[in-house]
Amino acid sequence: MGKVQLEDNDIKEKKTEFSLVQVKGTWKRKLGKVNKDTVDCVSAAKIYESITEKGATWTVVSPIVFTYKVTETQDLLDPINDTLLLGHLSDPQQVDDFKKSNNSIKRFVVIDQEVYKIYGPRLTHYLEANNVLYKIMALPTTEENKSMEMALKILEEVNSFSLDRRTEPIIAIGGGVCLDIVGLAASLYRRRTPYIRVPTTLLSYIDASVGAKTGVNFANCKNKLGAYIPPTAVFLDLSFIQTIPRRHIANGLAEMLKMALMKHRGLFELLEKHGRMLLDTKFQADNSVYGLSCLQAASQSTRIAITTMLEELAPNLWEDNLNRLVDFGHLISPALEMKVLPSLLHGEAVNIDMSYMVYVSKESGLLTEEEKQRIISCMVGLELPVWHEACTKELIQRSLQDRLKHSGGLVRMPLPVGLGKA
Amino acid sequence: MGKVQLEDNDIKEKKTEFSLVQVKGTWKRKLGKVNKDTVDCVSAAKIYESITEKGATWTVVSPIVFTYKVTETQDLLDPINDTLLLGHLSDPQQVDDFKKSNNSIKRFVVIDQEVYKIYGPRLTHYLEANNVLYKIMALPTTEENKSMEMALKILEEVNSFSLDRRTEPIIAIGGGVCLDIVGLAASLYRRRTPYIRVPTTLLSYIDASVGAKTGVNFANCKNKLGAYIPPTAVFLDLSFIQTIPRRHIANGLAEMLKMALMKHRGLFELLEKHGRMLLDTKFQADNSVYGLSCLQAASQSTRIAITTMLEELAPNLWEDNLNRLVDFGHLISPALEMKVLPSLLHGEAVNIDMSYMVYVSKESGLLTEEEKQRIISCMVGLELPVWHEACTKELIQRSLQDRLKHSGGLVRMPLPVGLGKA
Ligand SMILES: NC(=O)c1ccc[n+]([C@@H]2O[C@H](COP(=O)([O-])OP(=O)(O)OC[C@H]3O[C@@H](n4cnc5c(N)ncnc54)[C@H](O)[C@@H]3O)[C@@H](O)[C@H]2O)c1
Ligand SMILES: NC(=O)c1ccc[n+]([C@@H]2O[C@H](COP(=O)([O-])OP(=O)(O)OC[C@H]3O[C@@H](n4cnc5c(N)ncnc54)[C@H](O)[C@@H]3O)[C@@H](O)[C@H]2O)c1
Ligand SMILES: [Zn+2]
Ligand SMILES: [Zn+2]
Repeated sequence: MGKVQLEDNDIKEKKTEFSLVQVKGTWKRKLGKVNKDTVDCVSAAKIYESITEKGATWTVVSPIVFTYKVTETQDLLDPINDTLLLGHLSDPQQVDDFKKSNNSIKRFVVIDQEVYKIYGPRLTHYLEANNVLYKIMALPTTEENKSMEMALKILEEVNSFSLDRRTEPIIAIGGGVCLDIVGLAASLYRRRTPYIRVPTTLLSYIDASVGAKTGVNFANCKNKLGAYIPPTAVFLDLSFIQTIPRRHIANGLAEMLKMALMKHRGLFELLEKHGRMLLDTKFQADNSVYGLSCLQAASQSTRIAITTMLEELAPNLWEDNLNRLVDFGHLISPALEMKVLPSLLHGEAVNIDMSYMVYVSKESGLLTEEEKQRIISCMVGLELPVWHEACTKELIQRSLQDRLKHSGGLVRMPLPVGLGKA
Repeated sequence: MGKVQLEDNDIKEKKTEFSLVQVKGTWKRKLGKVNKDTVDCVSAAKIYESITEKGATWTVVSPIVFTYKVTETQDLLDPINDTLLLGHLSDPQQVDDFKKSNNSIKRFVVIDQEVYKIYGPRLTHYLEANNVLYKIMALPTTEENKSMEMALKILEEVNSFSLDRRTEPIIAIGGGVCLDIVGLAASLYRRRTPYIRVPTTLLSYIDASVGAKTGVNFANCKNKLGAYIPPTAVFLDLSFIQTIPRRHIANGLAEMLKMALMKHRGLFELLEKHGRMLLDTKFQADNSVYGLSCLQAASQSTRIAITTMLEELAPNLWEDNLNRLVDFGHLISPALEMKVLPSLLHGEAVNIDMSYMVYVSKESGLLTEEEKQRIISCMVGLELPVWHEACTKELIQRSLQDRLKHSGGLVRMPLPVGLGKA
């Protein structure tokens, strides 16, 4: 965790400001300027005190710095690649010490059951070859099972495996559902246990894995319970995508299109031009028709999607600012998704929401007819649905009202204005 | 939330550093010095990028600032006292706007069932008199019920009450158990819903209410699941303490004694001198034998306990530093407490732990025989147990080993060195 300095311009009442300094292991409040030579440590936190005849009020202001890594890698499950086991460490000294120590590593791994069917033998071989003390929990992490019960089931096992909550992160391997459940479970365990995300679907590769959000469904509402705790690291290996069904690739492309429409005309043009190829080649190298260009398109498009996503997430990790571009496509889609579960995938619902908004933008004069046409054609090219019969006027209105209620009376919804701008 | 500035001295690898600036509603990465005039907003977050032939790595560093209020008040349930409803707002303008608006306030209240029996009518009257749309949930929040099931039960009701997660904090009224469960439930709901703590036991008044910790028991372990999310506000009203059984007052005095031994000789002397009086008068004004001095002792001792506690908590809100003075008395006590549940209260187990450590300190030459005697006499004077038959050698050893395991091989335990120092 880094160090931070506060600018205390939002404490308006007249109060006494105390810094916090550490002297011989004890924290003390300190009035006025701190002489850094006489203390062991000065905290970024502050305490403000005001004492009146009614009593005392203390205001505590304490910053917590989250640091996490998002790392592209190849052949994650090749035993000579140590990313999965050590890639979360940021200090090269730590890595060296570790390699020299000969201690065996201990890891708890939760993996989507379908992913386990395909990659289980390689994962097991990887862990064995690296002499890891491990427990693999393969679970049916589907949208229907995305619940606190599943999280608690994981926690029972984590608890009996007994890991060191400082140095032994829990590893999640799977799609967004698996990553979201495991992230929540880890965040709850001993009030916070580090975890690692390995996305295996395109959607989770470019979206669910790179932010701080975790969650489970509750009371028939999507992600109603959760936490904002980022993983210590995300390891991205595009080769997992090769076994994803075509429809699930399109699903991920929808979230990519979202970033393209909101922020990046270049990405839109990539998707417009190469969408079909990306669907055909599943983001893999290909020696047939497409040649090298497909690896380039895969790498470029995912990188742009991730950097644009990180740009929006990093300054607003806890979503304190409600005015989020990444929410484009996520106004009507949650209700739609829960209503027709499991018939629409997340990205499909998002695409239907986006196509409705594109229509609204066009009607409001923010998009030209030609731009609208290009966007809709691109969606169709990505094999994404632009409408669903369950997306009724009532559902749309209810969603808008819900957003209104939860945002304190002000609906601010991102709309595309031209291509790649909002 | 305040603004912070990062010192990025712990990013060691060679990377490109990007600031994040907002231009027309969109966040952009920016290399090098930012000209503040040309952008709407500069974030305290940073993104570091390094691109090699193996792929790209991004490191996200994003600070979140927690701000919360701890406010002493009198007659919290007097309808003319608006602290419970508006005391969490820090901007006087917001309070004014609110008072003018005539909108009725909506509040979800969870209260300990025993507290409800005593204060329920006054609470209801308070809410009615202030025209609040409310739901009161009175629950048996005992240590045995301190579980995720109870948290989920609360969440079902919160969900059907449908509150605005930005402006309608959930209110918890009760002892540490109630505050811990509700704090966790609120922290999970929609990934974070603000909550308010109203402690009604002495222990929760000076301890459980002032920090960021929430939690429930799991798999027979104390507080195994939880979160570090502080309340938006804590409202302290000593008058609740008058209905607490004498034994539970002693229970709270144990945590006060902890702070006294670790940090504040003056507090130790207060407890040594006035402990008996505080037990007799239950921290209330008293017209009989003790006169005014008891109100003064009550106010002084609780204020010192809270400020010393806040000093230790604020710089270490998420307990990233394991070397905590507030952990004195909390090494052996969790196992002891769970083992003999419900026969020992939290503070009683803490006191047994402390008296063992005082003994260790004396044996190691850190305390004189006379100091040890004074501490033990003070404990006895506070009517706290200094031993329990379940506190066996095995239990002590197991606790030490457990701590060793969870702290990466280094047991650092705070021990008293003289009176009021560690
Ligand atoms: N946390 C966030 O910020 C965030 C962002 C977006 C979406 N989400 C969540 O992500 C979820 C959707 O994620 P998803 O689309 O990845 O769905 P998913 O996790 O349900 O996975 C889709 C399907 O693909 C299978 N699968 C996964 N990897 C595979 C592989 N490599 N080969 C073959 N099959 C594979 C799975 O078994 C599953 O059947 C939603 O619950 C959504 O709420 C979270
Ligand atoms: N979050 C933290 O930082 C923190 C710190 C210390 C302790 N704790 C937790 O706090 C819990 C212990 O808290 P506690 O000692 O307040 O116990 P508690 O919440 O169990 O309350 C003790 C008893 O007093 C009753 N009671 C509460 N207020 C009353 C009143 N005003 N009048 C009459 N009866 C009243 C309750 O019904 C209960 O029977 C433990 O679970 C511990 O883990 C948390
Ligand atoms: Zn999405
Ligand atoms: Zn305690």
